[in-house]
Order: sequence, then C-alpha cells, then structure tokens
Amino acid sequence: MEYKFSDKVSGLKASAIREILKFTADPEVISFAAGNPAPEAFPKEEIAKLSAELFRDDPILALQYSVTEGYTPLREFLKGWMSEKGCFHPEFDDLIVTSGGQQANELSCKVLLNEGDTLLCESPSFIGSLNAFRSYNVNLVGIDMEEDGIDLEKLENALKTEKNVKLLYLIPNFQNPTGRTMSLAKRKAVYELACRYDFIILEDDPYGELRFAGTNVPTIKSLDTEGRVIYSSTFSKLISSGFRTGFCSAPAPIIQKIVVCKQVSDVHSNIWAQVISHRFMTTVDREAHFNKLRAIYREKCGLMCSYIDNGFSDKITYVRPEGGLFIWCTLPDSCDMNAFCTKAVQEYKVAVVPGNSFNIREGDVSHSFRLNYSTPTNAQIEKGMEILSKMTKDMLD
Amino acid sequence: MEYKFSDKVSGLKASAIREILKFTADPEVISFAAGNPAPEAFPKEEIAKLSAELFRDDPILALQYSVTEGYTPLREFLKGWMSEKGCFHPEFDDLIVTSGGQQANELSCKVLLNEGDTLLCESPSFIGSLNAFRSYNVNLVGIDMEEDGIDLEKLENALKTEKNVKLLYLIPNFQNPTGRTMSLAKRKAVYELACRYDFIILEDDPYGELRFAGTNVPTIKSLDTEGRVIYSSTFSKLISSGFRTGFCSAPAPIIQKIVVCKQVSDVHSNIWAQVISHRFMTTVDREAHFNKLRAIYREKCGLMCSYIDNGFSDKITYVRPEGGLFIWCTLPDSCDMNAFCTKAVQEYKVAVVPGNSFNIREGDVSHSFRLNYSTPTNAQIEKGMEILSKMTKDMLD
Repeated sequence: MEYKFSDKVSGLKASAIREILKFTADPEVISFAAGNPAPEAFPKEEIAKLSAELFRDDPILALQYSVTEGYTPLREFLKGWMSEKGCFHPEFDDLIVTSGGQQANELSCKVLLNEGDTLLCESPSFIGSLNAFRSYNVNLVGIDMEEDGIDLEKLENALKTEKNVKLLYLIPNFQNPTGRTMSLAKRKAVYELACRYDFIILEDDPYGELRFAGTNVPTIKSLDTEGRVIYSSTFSKLISSGFRTGFCSAPAPIIQKIVVCKQVSDVHSNIWAQVISHRFMTTVDREAHFNKLRAIYREKCGLMCSYIDNGFSDKITYVRPEGGLFIWCTLPDSCDMNAFCTKAVQEYKVAVVPGNSFNIREGDVSHSFRLNYSTPTNAQIEKGMEILSKMTKDMLD
Repeated sequence: MEYKFSDKVSGLKASAIREILKFTADPEVISFAAGNPAPEAFPKEEIAKLSAELFRDDPILALQYSVTEGYTPLREFLKGWMSEKGCFHPEFDDLIVTSGGQQANELSCKVLLNEGDTLLCESPSFIGSLNAFRSYNVNLVGIDMEEDGIDLEKLENALKTEKNVKLLYLIPNFQNPTGRTMSLAKRKAVYELACRYDFIILEDDPYGELRFAGTNVPTIKSLDTEGRVIYSSTFSKLISSGFRTGFCSAPAPIIQKIVVCKQVSDVHSNIWAQVISHRFMTTVDREAHFNKLRAIYREKCGLMCSYIDNGFSDKITYVRPEGGLFIWCTLPDSCDMNAFCTKAVQEYKVAVVPGNSFNIREGDVSHSFRLNYSTPTNAQIEKGMEILSKMTKDMLD
C-alpha cells in the first residue's frame, strides 16, 4: 500500500552527516566527520565501579520505573551545580533531566511553537536541532554568524520582518559546526532583544565545560532576570554519550509543560544512567576528570590546527576554537566546496562534513567544511591532515 | 512574564494517575493504583552479571554514541523473535528499538497524523498513549469496549462519520485498564475494516508475554498481509522498566519515518540497556524467566480475585484477566464512582484508580475503577482487599 505521512515529517530527511558516515565504514577512510567524544574521555573504570556498587546495594532502583522529572538526587545536584554557574535561578526556574540535550531542545520547540511560528537560529547550526525544529513544521529562519557570534543587525531585522517569532536557538560556546564562541557583548545584546521583542532564548550548551583555552564567557542564562532563557546541557561529552542523560533549566511554567511532553514521549530517561551520573558527579573528583578531558581535546585540537597552520594552503581560513570538538574551515569563493569534500573522501580517503549540511535553507551556498578532532586518534589526525594538506595545496595553490 | 504555549500542549495535563499516586506517598496507604512490575520480577542477578561482563569486555560499546535504529545485534535478534511470533514480516517490515513502547506509540502518531486528523481508540484506554496522541492535537475518538474487545458496530459507525481516520490504537492483550483480551474473531474483523476503510492499526502489546491463563490469541500483526499494522512492545515488563527499551515492527516506509523522528527526539536509546537486553534474551533461559513472571502474576492476580469473589459486594462486577497487570471492577450505576475512590483512599487508606482517568472525552461518566496486583506484596493485597471488601459491603449491601 501507499503510505501517507503527516505534513510535518513528510519532507524530513535523516541527517546528511549520516550519509557521509557511510563512507567511513570503509576501513581505509580516515574520518574527521563524526562528533563522538574521544573513547579515552569516558571514565570507564569509575562507571564500572559505580554500576557494580549500585547493583550490589540497590538493584531495584536501577531497574524499576521512575519519575518523569528525573532521579530526585540528580535533579537536586543539578539545581545546585547550575545555581553555582548562574544557570539556575531558584526564584523562578525549575529543572528536568532529559534523554540527552537533544530531547530538551526538541521539547522546547514542541511546547512553545505552533506550526508556522518562527524559530530563529544561527546559520549554520547543529543539524540535529534543526531537524527537530523542522519536525514541528515551524518557520525556521537562519541568521548569519560573525566571528564573535550571531549578526545582531540581521537578527533585529528578522525580528522586525518575521511573523510570530517565539524562540531563538543559540549554541554560544564552541558552536557546532563553527567552533565559534559568542562574545559577552553579543550575549547581552541578544538578551536585551529578547526582552524588547518578547521571545524566548533556547541556549544549548553541550560543550561549555570543554574550554581548553581563553577565558570563560558568562552564559546567557546567567543574565536572565525576566525568565526568558531555556538552558540545556548534557553529560554526553562529560561522562557518557551512550547514557542519553541531559538536562534543562528553565522558568518553572516551561519545565512543567516539558515534563508533560516528556512523560508522553519516553515516560522517563534510563534510570541506571541517571543514578550513575549522580554518583559520578558527587563522589568522583569531577574537576580533575574535566581537566583530563580538556587536556585531551587541547592536544588533539592543537595537533589538527598545527597542520592547518603549517600544511594547508593559505587560501583556507579558520578561527582557532577555544573548546568543544570542531574546527570550521572556509575555502576561497572560487572553490566548489561540495566537489572538494567529495574528492577528499573518494580520492584521498579522508572524510570531512560539507558545510551545507548545516544550512538552514536547502540550496544555500556554503564554502566551508567541518573537521572533528575528538574522535580520531592522534595518529589518524597526523595522517589525515597530511593528506588534506597536500590536497589543498594541489587544488588551491 | 506570561508564557504562551503551543495549541497542542496548552491543554495537556500530567497523568491523572500521578495525582492519585501522591496519596500513596503516605506510608499508611496501600496502593493498588500503580502499574509497576513486581520488584521480584526483575532478573537482577543476571543483569548485574551481564553488566559487569560488558564493562570488563567492551566498556566503550556501553558508553559511546550509537545508531538511531538500535543496537544491531538486538535489532537482528528482535527481527528473528518477532518473525517466529508472526509479528515481523521480512518481506515488507522493518524494526526499530525505541525508548520504551511509549516512544513507539508517540512517534507512530507523529509520523502519520496532521493536527485535526482522527485517531480511534478503545474507550477506556491507556492514559499515557492517549496523552501522547493529544500532544499532537489530533481528533481522538473513543470506541466503547465489550467483554471480547472493541464494539465493531460502533467502530464501523465512527469510520463512516469521522473525518480523516488515519490510525486505530488497540491494546488487544490484557488491555490497560480493563485487563480484557480481544477475541480472534474481532481481531480479524478489525483488520478487514482497516483494509476496507484504508487506515493503519497501532497494536500495542506490552503484556503479551504475561499470559498466565487461557490460550494465546494471534496478534493482529500476524494477520497483516497489506502492511497495515504497526506492532509495538517493550522489555519494561519482562526485563526492566527503568531500561526504557522497547521496539516497534512496522512496514519499512513507516519505520524509516519513525527513525528520523527518533533521531531528532533522543538520537538513540540508552545503549547499555540495549546491549544488556540483547545478551539477556540470547544467553539466559528466557522462557524459564518468563514462566517465573507468569507464576508471580498468576498468584497475585488469583489472590486479588479471591477477595473480589468472596469478599466484595456482589454488586461489583469484573472480568477475570488471563494475563497482564490489572483488574477492572465496575460499580452499580447508582454508585458515585469518584466518591467511592476518594473515600477508599482518604478514609480507608487504599488507593485505586478512578475509571474516568482512562476516559477519552473529559466529562464522560465511568462506574469502574482499576486495581493493580503486580506492585503490592501479597500481604498488602490481603490487607488492602480485606479493607475494600468491608467497604464495598458497607456501602453497597
């Protein structure tokens, strides 16, 4: 029979990155296309120990149904931790544990937007969130980025011209895919626009703890006095991606609606992972662990950047990231980016992600590609970057 | 500030059962209101052992990102297991691992229905699914049930009068809340109506393995020749509820859309739980384990029924379930069901779920209440049912 799908999903496609990842099944291909944490970044011994203790002391806690809001001790810990960081305002915020940061972003859109309402975001932006928003048939409008974050003039222009702007989605720290960080001045300006034009900001911060250079910039949530910011984050890059344990701090009425929507989506997140996350954060020296992660990514990022600086054609430009997992390289306008990426993977056996995967509007031109340094080994970075260096020089110089 | 929510969620309320469960925080209250598996039903030693082995042999598998479709060995196992049961047709079906059966039901609605399209279901039905459907603003229409399942005449009448009927949601085995099982004749008739009126059936089967009396009835999915049935099930009642590991077998084009929607919802389900589920199902004697579960629920159900048969006022009627977790009791028309349930919990300290919690339309009258026998201990069943027996006789005889 012929199947008819709902309008909101009929045009929805799987992430384009997955298409590229198919090439990486070829063992000859070196992949800079993924976004997985380094395997050595997972605290596997500590998790194994905490899990064994949990099954020894309280197995039913790990196996029985739990509450939608999240494991209470983890929620209480997160409220305190986020308060310290200015990301939870006890006087008006509440907090929910979600199935990864992804679920927090998806449900924020579901509870706030009707079909056709406008959701603004940085352009380019994280494809997973973009597709989540698309799956609710909203009017998704991208705002160009500058080196220090979203273009304020273009943002205000969109606020004046687009109808029913309900939400602005931002990844202020080490943005995916650009690796860029929004300046404090822009964070303040964006928050002021939210107050003036009456919309909500969804601040997605999966990489905030992974700063390995430069100085910390306050979150937009920490500037929130009116209850206009939803802050989402995750343990995916800090403890385990496979856990699917994220969280979301937001004004209590918004959390209340997210709770109801999460209840009908998956009842609650895997409780074993929630208990382990809580015990890890409260019984292990977490700052020492985070410092270890920062050291791993500082080294890998530095290694990759040294090849861009010394090996790549000078016609390729990039901004050196101060944290996170990605580097965004831009080719000269004369170069066909898609042809470049296809040639890289098919001829040179090195996979990178074409920049147009992160476009807001299909058909927009991109001259950039994304490199990931967290997943490959140092040896793979060395080998793959040497190949790419030669390729860029052959093609561009 | 004042928050405006999307039309689809603004009227959505948390499960009414959660309100009743608040009373059960009182340690004096005996609760027959939950729906949790018996704690002794979880194979905790086996899971602890499998988990320890996984962390010893392949910790990164348990901690790293995985694919949206589900852990490949688990998917392959499920395809085989479901094929044996007639619930997977290799020639046209595909299968996805979901975050509980709940997610399979929610995403089936999301991919198939536009706002305003009609979704038919049994009346009464499982509140978690009903709220999932409501969260997509569909036209939810309940069809009355008879002892052997949905009323076919009323179903066909709705098919003739309701607009854009896309989906019929059914729990054919040991339905929640009624505990009733749909006859084979009705399953066949419902499938024929699906072919004739061109709609899809969503067959939710969380309790199918928990048959402890009577004879097995073939699933509707096993009758599916045209690719019209989505079959969802879960390990929640078989291995662990806290895992949030369910699955869904359906025609490949539908699974493809569910995969995309799951990807933007939670990327993938907790991978540790998927690996453990796979190893449990393939290395432990699962039939022996299921037989143990059946024995537990046979005994608990029998104990509860013996009090209804011998202690309750004769004016209360019920159908003895042959599996699952619930008993549905019906008061005489003259009795105010809500007053009965309130009195039970407030004066007699025994919590049951008022039948109108499972209503499709708010305001409809119900004379029934739901009893659960899986969560309380045998001693609690004895004490609580003695109290309820006295109460029913005092009030009704």
